[in-house]
Amino acid sequence: MNLEIQTAQLSAELEALAAYSEAPAPAVTRVVFSETDRQAREYVKRLCAGAGLAIREDAVGNTFARWAGSEPALAAVATGSHIDAIPNAGRYDGTVGVLGGLEAIRALQRSGFSPRRSIELVIFTSEEPTRFGIGCIGSRLLAGVLDAAADTRLMGKDGETLNHWRTAAGFDGGLAGVRLAHGHYAAFLELHIEQGPLLERAGIPLGVVTAIAAPASLRIRIEGEGGHAGAVPMPARKDAFCAAAELVLAVESAAKSTGAIDTVATVGVCEVFPGAINSIPSEVRLEVDVRDTNEARRDAVLAQIDGACADVAKRRGVAVKTETINADKPAQCDARVVESLTRACATHQLGFQTMASRAYHDSLFMSRIAPTAMLFIPCRGGVSHRPDEYASAEAIACGVLALAETLADLASK
Amino acid sequence: MNLEIQTAQLSAELEALAAYSEAPAPAVTRVVFSETDRQAREYVKRLCAGAGLAIREDAVGNTFARWAGSEPALAAVATGSHIDAIPNAGRYDGTVGVLGGLEAIRALQRSGFSPRRSIELVIFTSEEPTRFGIGCIGSRLLAGVLDAAADTRLMGKDGETLNHWRTAAGFDGGLAGVRLAHGHYAAFLELHIEQGPLLERAGIPLGVVTAIAAPASLRIRIEGEGGHAGAVPMPARKDAFCAAAELVLAVESAAKSTGAIDTVATVGVCEVFPGAINSIPSEVRLEVDVRDTNEARRDAVLAQIDGACADVAKRRGVAVKTETINADKPAQCDARVVESLTRACATHQLGFQTMASRAYHDSLFMSRIAPTAMLFIPCRGGVSHRPDEYASAEAIACGVLALAETLADLASK
Repeated sequence: MNLEIQTAQLSAELEALAAYSEAPAPAVTRVVFSETDRQAREYVKRLCAGAGLAIREDAVGNTFARWAGSEPALAAVATGSHIDAIPNAGRYDGTVGVLGGLEAIRALQRSGFSPRRSIELVIFTSEEPTRFGIGCIGSRLLAGVLDAAADTRLMGKDGETLNHWRTAAGFDGGLAGVRLAHGHYAAFLELHIEQGPLLERAGIPLGVVTAIAAPASLRIRIEGEGGHAGAVPMPARKDAFCAAAELVLAVESAAKSTGAIDTVATVGVCEVFPGAINSIPSEVRLEVDVRDTNEARRDAVLAQIDGACADVAKRRGVAVKTETINADKPAQCDARVVESLTRACATHQLGFQTMASRAYHDSLFMSRIAPTAMLFIPCRGGVSHRPDEYASAEAIACGVLALAETLADLASK
Repeated sequence: MNLEIQTAQLSAELEALAAYSEAPAPAVTRVVFSETDRQAREYVKRLCAGAGLAIREDAVGNTFARWAGSEPALAAVATGSHIDAIPNAGRYDGTVGVLGGLEAIRALQRSGFSPRRSIELVIFTSEEPTRFGIGCIGSRLLAGVLDAAADTRLMGKDGETLNHWRTAAGFDGGLAGVRLAHGHYAAFLELHIEQGPLLERAGIPLGVVTAIAAPASLRIRIEGEGGHAGAVPMPARKDAFCAAAELVLAVESAAKSTGAIDTVATVGVCEVFPGAINSIPSEVRLEVDVRDTNEARRDAVLAQIDGACADVAKRRGVAVKTETINADKPAQCDARVVESLTRACATHQLGFQTMASRAYHDSLFMSRIAPTAMLFIPCRGGVSHRPDEYASAEAIACGVLALAETLADLASK
């Protein structure tokens, strides 16, 4: 099988996709169900149609582009990722797995390969938590990890529900129909930039992911007492933002206290009410992200944060409410899919190392319903979720080549 | 002179004005140059026209409603305040001085009083710093404390200038023409809720203000390093929000360290970029308000905050830039106007105490160009800048009565 990756075309497509952005280049902002997201979806669907793939969309906007196999009744082999991007993100997170997955399929088509099982490209809805505060909504629904009631429960900062946003974007029907049966796919593979520095530092072109870290996220709401910034003396204050500041530092300390390099915690979102320079903050909302490859260690950090909330509430006379948005279990990748990936690397003489993913991905949820593994490529400086996120065309091509080989292998079985 | 305050009508007008709000009642949000602000201005102008006052507006939207005196060439006596309101504010801050000032004029008209000097009601533009980060834009321009270049220098969070906003709101012409000459007014008086607890606690109906505290405000910008919240280990981070949290606590400590009840400092505004739960904050912007009745003590607090900025920058490897938005001088009220106020209180057997204003007001700037004093009425719990801000109709009527008496006295001289 003669697999040739059209690197220049893939680069041009990644660049074209990056132009669908609410932020000026090189930054990319593409929030799920925005007009920009809609246009980007249309662009990717045009490319899929150009490759002769049959397109289906489900009620939440997950998009499936299928290359029918010679035995279409068999469970398909799938690959894919997401195209939504957090505010001021880069152009490779997610998109490499979508457009790289498409190029893998096209390379197989050009080589004359004829798959026994169908091969499907999946574009997942709302991998990023930007709009609804929780990530991987599409893959959670596919895997049944999120129930259909999420339709009216999940809510953006604008107070509008998932149902409002998805129907406004043209995706209707009940969410219950989104879920896929266990065994619907024979295998799932996701190509992704590492979003960390290990591959680049080691000078190794590919990472075969064998486990995906378990993330947890929290909302913390601190209710103090507002008032005029000039008129309320310091001892009489219950400033919600001062209380929040202590919690931000407590989250940092809790993560550092494990001494493990894999424990991380971040407060990435903060809203201060009423938010005027001459007004004492009456309420602050924080969103906290805690991750670890070790679930017990992660949960110990969460317990430490809970303790800090109780302490700050008592000491400052404010109300602190925490809500767990999600606390997922880590995933082990499927040994057979991992083996197929490593074989593909060997076939094409591509160096690789096995590794864990500390960031989480749609694969974390796809692993609940399909034999799953991931393939990482290095990104410059390990940087991601920033406008200067970068993966070279050559690095991407290596990943697409190994992905195509693996898809061919798994689709033949 | 038989002065009767129409309490019920004034209450109804305050309620009608409060309905011009972007927030649901009882909260009031009325940002300068918004559509709501425009409608509220129209409402107040209709009331002024109803009282036969001649209306003039300047290039920044300051509005002057004049009851012509028998010697109109003499410098007028003025009273007034503002009608803009911070997000989720109450309905009495500023509005009591505007509609109460109007009712004082109407009470004088009804009594048959004929003023020698004209009496003018002033509605100041943008007393609140909500849109442009600096308060009292109208009175600063009237007093020449703000230069005409502020027109393009002052900018909202949306990146649009004062010039853009004022012309969009229908106020054009050069800002240089806004400034009033020293002596333009024979006196200026502002009726206002105390926004603190002292009058209520003491059970005294009126406060005659003899000094206004000196506020200072800062913008602090912290630039760290962003990245994916899952992928960057804690020791490698330069999290701008953790650095900001330390500064928020440092501001609080600095204010508390003076041990003086009149020293207050507040961080009321915080913006986190990029602001996603799975992204390490790369940049944070804070707005800080520091006040004291003692200028030297206030400046010592500012110096302490500067020191904390330098320390945090060095220790965390982030860039911290501070910008002074304003650092005004305290004002002493005019002895003659204060004396007229105290005499008016005595005439109507209204109890009063002299006091300082810790909050600042348009009077702070009017005092640069006119003999100025303020009159405070109690507000419930000392609460202000909150939806539950409240002053009773009786408390307001006391203030209006003393104000009317004082206006009559000063307009006769």
